[in-house]
Amino acid sequence: MQAETNAQLRLARRPNGEAVADDFELTQDAIPRPEEGEVLVRAHYLSVDPSARTHWNDGSSYRAMVQLGEVIDVPVAGEVVESRHPDFAVGELAAGQMGLHEYGVAPGSALTRVDLDIAPLSSWLGGLGLTGLTAYFGLLEVGDPQPGETVVVTAASGAVGMVVGQIARIKGARAVGIAGSPEKCRFLTEELGFDAAVNYKSDDLYRDLRAATPERIDVIFDNVGGPLLDTLIRRLAIHGRIVVSGATSQYNQDVIYGPTNYLALATMRARMEGFIIFDFEDRYAEARADMAAWIRAGSLKLRENVVAGELADYPQVLHRLYQGENMGKMLIRLPAGR
Amino acid sequence: MQAETNAQLRLARRPNGEAVADDFELTQDAIPRPEEGEVLVRAHYLSVDPSARTHWNDGSSYRAMVQLGEVIDVPVAGEVVESRHPDFAVGELAAGQMGLHEYGVAPGSALTRVDLDIAPLSSWLGGLGLTGLTAYFGLLEVGDPQPGETVVVTAASGAVGMVVGQIARIKGARAVGIAGSPEKCRFLTEELGFDAAVNYKSDDLYRDLRAATPERIDVIFDNVGGPLLDTLIRRLAIHGRIVVSGATSQYNQDVIYGPTNYLALATMRARMEGFIIFDFEDRYAEARADMAAWIRAGSLKLRENVVAGELADYPQVLHRLYQGENMGKMLIRLPAGR
Repeated sequence: MQAETNAQLRLARRPNGEAVADDFELTQDAIPRPEEGEVLVRAHYLSVDPSARTHWNDGSSYRAMVQLGEVIDVPVAGEVVESRHPDFAVGELAAGQMGLHEYGVAPGSALTRVDLDIAPLSSWLGGLGLTGLTAYFGLLEVGDPQPGETVVVTAASGAVGMVVGQIARIKGARAVGIAGSPEKCRFLTEELGFDAAVNYKSDDLYRDLRAATPERIDVIFDNVGGPLLDTLIRRLAIHGRIVVSGATSQYNQDVIYGPTNYLALATMRARMEGFIIFDFEDRYAEARADMAAWIRAGSLKLRENVVAGELADYPQVLHRLYQGENMGKMLIRLPAGR
Repeated sequence: MQAETNAQLRLARRPNGEAVADDFELTQDAIPRPEEGEVLVRAHYLSVDPSARTHWNDGSSYRAMVQLGEVIDVPVAGEVVESRHPDFAVGELAAGQMGLHEYGVAPGSALTRVDLDIAPLSSWLGGLGLTGLTAYFGLLEVGDPQPGETVVVTAASGAVGMVVGQIARIKGARAVGIAGSPEKCRFLTEELGFDAAVNYKSDDLYRDLRAATPERIDVIFDNVGGPLLDTLIRRLAIHGRIVVSGATSQYNQDVIYGPTNYLALATMRARMEGFIIFDFEDRYAEARADMAAWIRAGSLKLRENVVAGELADYPQVLHRLYQGENMGKMLIRLPAGR
């Protein structure tokens, strides 16, 4: 019933700038057996997230960083092949932070039961996974958009951004997305219902941003950082909020570009605030119930960019993500996937 | 009874970097007469504040910037020489934003009545003026220190900083000051009762900071900005708050140094927030009542650094402030002053 061995991808050395294939090592070992309370899951989909990169540096992080030789820690969705937890039966589907294993083990308490009536398996790593939860709690708990306010989100056609803009609209705010091509901008306005989208590669970004935000910006949900964030801060409204979700433009840099316009926080009586999604763990179910209702109502559309591949393809798929080629949640579907 | 003419200092050109004497022009005109509701005040003390510099650039600010040829806008304290406002009688003392005039006119509603039983006239520009109010509202409303928490304040021996640390202690927090010399550090711990002080010119600032903040930093009250702020952010505690009060290290720079450690806001679930003192105008009386009680109880000590001089000395006294020579609130006492 099972393969004889289990493949996994490990961190072979600390990346210098962007991670390359040689920073990883594909290894094989025996398929693990779950202990009491644990579940063994065969991976169908692997989550590919720019933020994974932040755990591979030699330095502190909010979670233990990945040590050399350790398996890369990413969310995975797949099928239960052995269970010693009462909530999971063999043949059911589950998602959780199991790492880049073909067969991963996790405590049942750390896994999410997948309900295909709400959304397909791949979406449980995207809109219904940590990605969507990041959008939900970051926007609603930190950004706190009010009806009629303007929310601007960067990397808007990415996994987190596309959910942020749609939830902003569901809450009665005006949603403006920043993305890197005319196609992405059209995707945002025509397919996802954003009120406006701005291509950050414009000759005159500030002009375009101003046109898209006539009443300035109440909430900046930032996934990108760098000079783009500075430009957005120039349009911040009084009592504006900047949600620090990520900084994809900076993860591969040795020296982070700090927001040179941060003194606008004083002139605008504004705040810049971060969050860690794991702090909201006891509210994931509530968030997923809201999102499931929005999906059924048609007000929240999820989109995945699924690449068929193997564990070993992870580095190059991550590279594509950093190239900005992506729309929607980036996933690898393994041969076992369906 | 009055001199025949009135002197004032005007902005002659926009400073390039730090302001120099030639950026200002001393002019003379007739002594103004108050309109109905206004008060004419002869200046005794002029407030010298690093933040004044932020109004002389050609760019937006939360207040109208000073235009070329306009009188420099600073707080002044002095004696009422003519009054058309019922709350002020000739011979009484008043403080307010009257600008660098020998004789200034302001609406009575914008002036503060000075009570020498609470503190001397000079303190009504310092601890009981906008400086102290900035410390009070910035710390209590934005920083919100809790008993047992650690508050670190930069430019701690300056006008705002010394009040911040003392209020932090009054509220039961641990107060740590950052200053630029052993003398200033001793002033903070021995005269003002700070729990610890750190000289930012140390060979190993982070080591000294860590020793002074064994439980990390819950509130950073920042007046300085630049790389110093980055170092402080490295010690930020979970749910920490950074109060953006000012950035004296950056006011004379063309390009502001943004905090390169701002992503710690995410890992630490922290916020960085600014404020404008004028938003709290309807609570100034409440704050002054608190501070007057603390002064009487001996838990709040004010200190002014008073330089005897003329209006024309303002640029060089401001320069001394930027040289970091100052302890306490920097003021010029004019010949009329007492």
